[in-house]
Amino acid sequence: MSHNTFGHLFRVTTWGESHGPAIGCVVDGCPPNIPLTEADIQPWLDQRKPGGSRFVTQRQESDTARILSGVFDDGAGQVTTGTPISILIENEDQRSKDYGEIARAYRPGHADFTYQAKYGVRDHRGGGRSSARETAMRVAAGAVARKVLGESIRIRAGVVQLGPHRIAPDAIDFGAVHDNALFAASTAVAPEWEAYLDGVRKAGSSIGAVVALEVTGVPAGWGAPIYGKLDAELAAALMSINAVKGVEIGAGFGAAELSGEDNADQMRMGDDGEPVFLSNHAGGVLGGISTGQPVTARVAFKPTSSILTLRQTVTRDGEETDLRTKGRHDPCVALRGVPVVEAMAACVLADAMMRHRAQVR
Amino acid sequence: MSHNTFGHLFRVTTWGESHGPAIGCVVDGCPPNIPLTEADIQPWLDQRKPGGSRFVTQRQESDTARILSGVFDDGAGQVTTGTPISILIENEDQRSKDYGEIARAYRPGHADFTYQAKYGVRDHRGGGRSSARETAMRVAAGAVARKVLGESIRIRAGVVQLGPHRIAPDAIDFGAVHDNALFAASTAVAPEWEAYLDGVRKAGSSIGAVVALEVTGVPAGWGAPIYGKLDAELAAALMSINAVKGVEIGAGFGAAELSGEDNADQMRMGDDGEPVFLSNHAGGVLGGISTGQPVTARVAFKPTSSILTLRQTVTRDGEETDLRTKGRHDPCVALRGVPVVEAMAACVLADAMMRHRAQVR
Amino acid sequence: MSHNTFGHLFRVTTWGESHGPAIGCVVDGCPPNIPLTEADIQPWLDQRKPGGSRFVTQRQESDTARILSGVFDDGAGQVTTGTPISILIENEDQRSKDYGEIARAYRPGHADFTYQAKYGVRDHRGGGRSSARETAMRVAAGAVARKVLGESIRIRAGVVQLGPHRIAPDAIDFGAVHDNALFAASTAVAPEWEAYLDGVRKAGSSIGAVVALEVTGVPAGWGAPIYGKLDAELAAALMSINAVKGVEIGAGFGAAELSGEDNADQMRMGDDGEPVFLSNHAGGVLGGISTGQPVTARVAFKPTSSILTLRQTVTRDGEETDLRTKGRHDPCVALRGVPVVEAMAACVLADAMMRHRAQVR
Amino acid sequence: MSHNTFGHLFRVTTWGESHGPAIGCVVDGCPPNIPLTEADIQPWLDQRKPGGSRFVTQRQESDTARILSGVFDDGAGQVTTGTPISILIENEDQRSKDYGEIARAYRPGHADFTYQAKYGVRDHRGGGRSSARETAMRVAAGAVARKVLGESIRIRAGVVQLGPHRIAPDAIDFGAVHDNALFAASTAVAPEWEAYLDGVRKAGSSIGAVVALEVTGVPAGWGAPIYGKLDAELAAALMSINAVKGVEIGAGFGAAELSGEDNADQMRMGDDGEPVFLSNHAGGVLGGISTGQPVTARVAFKPTSSILTLRQTVTRDGEETDLRTKGRHDPCVALRGVPVVEAMAACVLADAMMRHRAQVR
Repeated sequence: MSHNTFGHLFRVTTWGESHGPAIGCVVDGCPPNIPLTEADIQPWLDQRKPGGSRFVTQRQESDTARILSGVFDDGAGQVTTGTPISILIENEDQRSKDYGEIARAYRPGHADFTYQAKYGVRDHRGGGRSSARETAMRVAAGAVARKVLGESIRIRAGVVQLGPHRIAPDAIDFGAVHDNALFAASTAVAPEWEAYLDGVRKAGSSIGAVVALEVTGVPAGWGAPIYGKLDAELAAALMSINAVKGVEIGAGFGAAELSGEDNADQMRMGDDGEPVFLSNHAGGVLGGISTGQPVTARVAFKPTSSILTLRQTVTRDGEETDLRTKGRHDPCVALRGVPVVEAMAACVLADAMMRHRAQVR
Repeated sequence: MSHNTFGHLFRVTTWGESHGPAIGCVVDGCPPNIPLTEADIQPWLDQRKPGGSRFVTQRQESDTARILSGVFDDGAGQVTTGTPISILIENEDQRSKDYGEIARAYRPGHADFTYQAKYGVRDHRGGGRSSARETAMRVAAGAVARKVLGESIRIRAGVVQLGPHRIAPDAIDFGAVHDNALFAASTAVAPEWEAYLDGVRKAGSSIGAVVALEVTGVPAGWGAPIYGKLDAELAAALMSINAVKGVEIGAGFGAAELSGEDNADQMRMGDDGEPVFLSNHAGGVLGGISTGQPVTARVAFKPTSSILTLRQTVTRDGEETDLRTKGRHDPCVALRGVPVVEAMAACVLADAMMRHRAQVR
Repeated sequence: MSHNTFGHLFRVTTWGESHGPAIGCVVDGCPPNIPLTEADIQPWLDQRKPGGSRFVTQRQESDTARILSGVFDDGAGQVTTGTPISILIENEDQRSKDYGEIARAYRPGHADFTYQAKYGVRDHRGGGRSSARETAMRVAAGAVARKVLGESIRIRAGVVQLGPHRIAPDAIDFGAVHDNALFAASTAVAPEWEAYLDGVRKAGSSIGAVVALEVTGVPAGWGAPIYGKLDAELAAALMSINAVKGVEIGAGFGAAELSGEDNADQMRMGDDGEPVFLSNHAGGVLGGISTGQPVTARVAFKPTSSILTLRQTVTRDGEETDLRTKGRHDPCVALRGVPVVEAMAACVLADAMMRHRAQVR
Repeated sequence: MSHNTFGHLFRVTTWGESHGPAIGCVVDGCPPNIPLTEADIQPWLDQRKPGGSRFVTQRQESDTARILSGVFDDGAGQVTTGTPISILIENEDQRSKDYGEIARAYRPGHADFTYQAKYGVRDHRGGGRSSARETAMRVAAGAVARKVLGESIRIRAGVVQLGPHRIAPDAIDFGAVHDNALFAASTAVAPEWEAYLDGVRKAGSSIGAVVALEVTGVPAGWGAPIYGKLDAELAAALMSINAVKGVEIGAGFGAAELSGEDNADQMRMGDDGEPVFLSNHAGGVLGGISTGQPVTARVAFKPTSSILTLRQTVTRDGEETDLRTKGRHDPCVALRGVPVVEAMAACVLADAMMRHRAQVR
């Protein structure tokens, strides 16, 4: 993770601002001979595309990804060549006038102030580089990572808490995520949650949420301790997503209330002669190395900072002012965060797989 | 963060196993001309030293650090030279016989199984490389990082939750941490907590905890978005500590229940003509860049997995067995995690400072 | 230097194949507030553009660079923002039919065989990723690096040996490089060299050459020993250029014949009170750190491997065949290597400057 | 290559000064289950040990390496565990008084001036960190790398030019290197060379040399273009060795005088059904990827800068003075460079092997 590149061997570099001509990424180090076309990428992008429902920003973007390099069709279908894969999405809807006032005033909760403080200059249009629009490229890269991982590894995420509303742990059903507009991991909660979020939206407000992640099929042995632990790399990748304020692995903060007897996952031999764990408080990671159990995590998203209520702030010139963030926005940014969480997990795991097979044949 | 090295410019590489002849670290990239002797390192090591109270492992180690390179005294006192600083601690108490049984059986909750699964071989003595003993070198490196950061930056951590017992947010007092044997951030709770933990200890059990971190004096502008965000790097550094299962920045998981109005920190101009924030739900980080507010985080530690209760497990040879972890251990590993949390924060911040001044003069 | 990214803090990632839709680069870590437009990049690209004279490939490319991110004009002219700078050049002339035969047969001296051996697949069109076309993006990145370095640092290269013809060391004049079609560092040799190279070209053959590099204005102190030595990083950067087979710093291989008395540069105090060196066999680098003297290097280019003479080779299917490389090519690839050598030096130095100021204020 | 660490997956970090208490290295990322004891390392160290003949420095060091971590004997012999391998050599002969004068004056040709210019402080004793003593740890790390590579890969180097004396290319015999005190790749030249070097030594002078490297057994496919090319990584690794001023791959600078017909290595099918090259001007690398041919390089060493002749220099305080470097030194530093060249090649290749198998199964 270094500036705008992440990963060690499966390396992703993203670029682009919210209102520039385009955004893009370069995926470097990808293994060769993996079938890959735009059709492998677009469905994942469509999941986080703006304008999909009344619960996400109404910015109009088709988010059509083009692959510009790193693939070749030698007659048997287009495959990766092992060279860098450049993916580009043109920005179509760049209504900069919506954002005029924020050229001067810092939007509370946004990165306007900190970018200005750090760099002494910023592209204020739509948040520039700090816009969640950047996450589209994470999703594109994640689509490539999924191809590298193959179908035996299944990565799923869903909203499990929306403001004060929670899905009970034993009611979480990742199969329900794409059956409701809120990406909720339960069809049962959807009606109540939709009504709640409609209220939030109509009030011009916003609300935070928690996204849960579950990855099955990861074999025991991935992760590079001590400082490349699988959970540490996941934590960095997930915390780097816009609006994320917390990451848990397995029992997470709940582990702080557990005794050693209740927390440590006991083991027995499975029917296939492989060790099995009788529980998974570890979230599939022990000592920074995968156990073979599902890798589980939870990610806390703060509420969208763009709201219609007038808020106190200051300008670049040091004047106090009050600001209302007009324009398009999401009442709950976590919804579109679901495919991003999955994508970051995919990238971390593809990288871990490659690192593991480099060191251990 | 790459295998056993972390940091980009202020880079720390650690090595050594629990029961090998020594453990050590190499701190590379340190700025020159910073006064540094063993006396700058030892006090921090003494904070996490085994045997300090009845609440920590009774392993006998003086944990005396020696600096083997990277410093020079040209007549005006010993200073760093800009070359790699090698620090070494000899292991004194290597009672390997205590650990005989675990050569075969995997201790539940420990990394025995995953190290074996990954590498096909492991140093089982005291957990080998996965032992918390490694964190001594993080503390040593953190001591160097503190010297790089200087005295204007103050890094403090303390236990704020012990199992079911919590310190109310407005009662947290980092000044109290070193006035009680539990590193609790409140003197008021100490007697009750000590009694509670004595019970846990006598039962041969263990309990989880939460450690809070607060860093003051960090100027606005540190952090390297998008993938070197200050909070992402903190998350990785903290999650890499043994037994950590969760990391929050600022409001953390609490932000999931907040509205945009309640969460986004409003701004006003301070008396000194600099912007001030009216709250700090952001935890001192917006868009991955420091705001100038205190950087705050919370870290969840699972309970020590070594307990006296008989637990179900399997052996390397695929046999089911029951195991009781005899030998020395901590009833709450988070206590000795307090200086480690501080040290990791120090290293992350020294690195962020150097990266910032590289890019922005 | 890692796969398709080079640099530590001033980081350049390139992508694209010779006959794909486009080639591009991402320059990450660039300091903010540096004036930068396409007009700063294009002149350098024009120097290595195909079709410039009869001595370079007749492929028709305008090589027009577009900046897609990382810059912003807030009213005072377009400047860098500290975010990644994406630069893209569309490929216009993709006459793939010229390259039909090489889909099967490996061109001697080219990377066809090794790409196939490594990846099991390759984009054979025009050499794909291994084409010298990639060096256009190095030149674009180098243009950005020059802006970072500022005008006090002057980077110049020129051809000093063409096959058997050499310019005497004391006759090298970098001021002459852009006054002749051969980028020769001497106007005197140009007529003879042009006649010689015309002969090579008309024979359908090619010839090797040596390019010399001189950088003035580098202050003493840049370079990051032991493994980030300035000369080691220059060596890697220059050796990574297509067709380069050798790199010398200062006296280079000539130093093997010198005695200690003749080689070691003596010192005296200059009129300005700063130390001066009485010679520069070191090439401006001692112990991997710049001395303040001009940084000098020499780079050997092999002859273009694409020639009209029939050569023995084998096919992907293991059949022996004879191959003549038709199509456009350069009789001396080193000519277009001159701006590439300069660009790589610029990138290495910008990176070294930033690394130095990170560690030493 | 970053400050004091090199390698991407097989990573070596070295530390220590010439006259500090010890020098050492940490080898990280090493595959597990490779037999490794001190006995695998010591023989290579003995090759570059001081005091071996009258042609090398008379400093008395046993250079005994101790492995402090990363290995374990579980009953079947000591093997690597996949965790960091720490190797330490204590400095025994630290006659600091020999070096008193150079605390003030900069030795011409040494890094005294540049270390002081960069860091504002330096350990002047014996050159501190810039001493060739550091290369002992490269040799130790190289010994581990050899074990990773296995016996099918053979790495050999030898002196092929000593000042004005050269071994004809077709007379080079790496088998002769350890049969003469000069590490010359020919027994025939040894008597004349020894007489010549005795003269140099008795005159208190020194002379440069060229070391040739040949690695056989490298399969086709290693190397990570474009910026992790095998030859670029070799160039950096070799140029980082003390006193090296030039690196050639294959035909090297000689390629500048070749035509395309003479340079490009033609191919035919071998008896085993694998492609073979009819020559090896490429030095075993095309497009940055190994061809399966021997990897060949040549490395130019400057003469030792420490000589008995009085030389002009300046002091740290800006005074002009004349300096004679007393004390122990080598008349030709390249001799002890032979095992270092081999060691760096071993480390680069082990890293390339691991990177290759990470990307391509």
